[in-house]
Amino acid sequence: MRKATNISSHNHEREHGTRLMPKFDQSGLISAVVQDSRSGEVLMVAFMDEEALAATRESGEAHFHSRSRDKLWKKGETSGNVLKVEQVLIDCDQDAVVLKVVPAGPTCHTGARSCFYRELDGDTLKPLAE
Amino acid sequence: MRKATNISSHNHEREHGTRLMPKFDQSGLISAVVQDSRSGEVLMVAFMDEEALAATRESGEAHFHSRSRDKLWKKGETSGNVLKVEQVLIDCDQDAVVLKVVPAGPTCHTGARSCFYRELDGDTLKPLAE
Repeated sequence: MRKATNISSHNHEREHGTRLMPKFDQSGLISAVVQDSRSGEVLMVAFMDEEALAATRESGEAHFHSRSRDKLWKKGETSGNVLKVEQVLIDCDQDAVVLKVVPAGPTCHTGARSCFYRELDGDTLKPLAE
Repeated sequence: MRKATNISSHNHEREHGTRLMPKFDQSGLISAVVQDSRSGEVLMVAFMDEEALAATRESGEAHFHSRSRDKLWKKGETSGNVLKVEQVLIDCDQDAVVLKVVPAGPTCHTGARSCFYRELDGDTLKPLAE
């Protein structure tokens, strides 16, 4: 009973409090959505671990955790297309963030402005108008 | 060598082709960002498995996979606050989608319009102006 109460009050603080309490999943990750702060366009989606979140907060530039390489990944570290973070939003249960950014260039490694350059049209994918 | 070529051509088709080839992770999931199709506001972030993606496409209303309950979850099934999906965007490597939706009511279970109702302000969380 005491345990249930503690979990409940923990969840209440997480949802309604003013304290940053990221709820990392069993792989140590939260979701991170990158949104252009001017256009509102969603540019990419990735994951952050504690290290990536700290590096982003300290540097003001977006860092993620690469699941394929299992390491810290500064977006733009090779391309130069860094993402300047203007605002960080966090969701109710603190397992996802939205980064409002100013991108230095195309966000997608394909050269597209956003990684979301196709829409589902029936059973096929159709390029979006730029 | 043949294997490498096949993987490479598979990845090329996934990034540049017109065929829907979702890249589910080892848990069978892709990320799903829900964005208000009118305001551009990010309303919530969740996960979809193959079943949730199929249910969303068939019904035109957003379905997700609940990781905590390990089952299909129709958003709004109890609250009535369903999300009508107007457009589905998919990213370069097909492991994330953006759902452009018209929400029937508040998206967050707390009653907030969006789950992202706080921003990080230094070390604390600050409610966003509605």
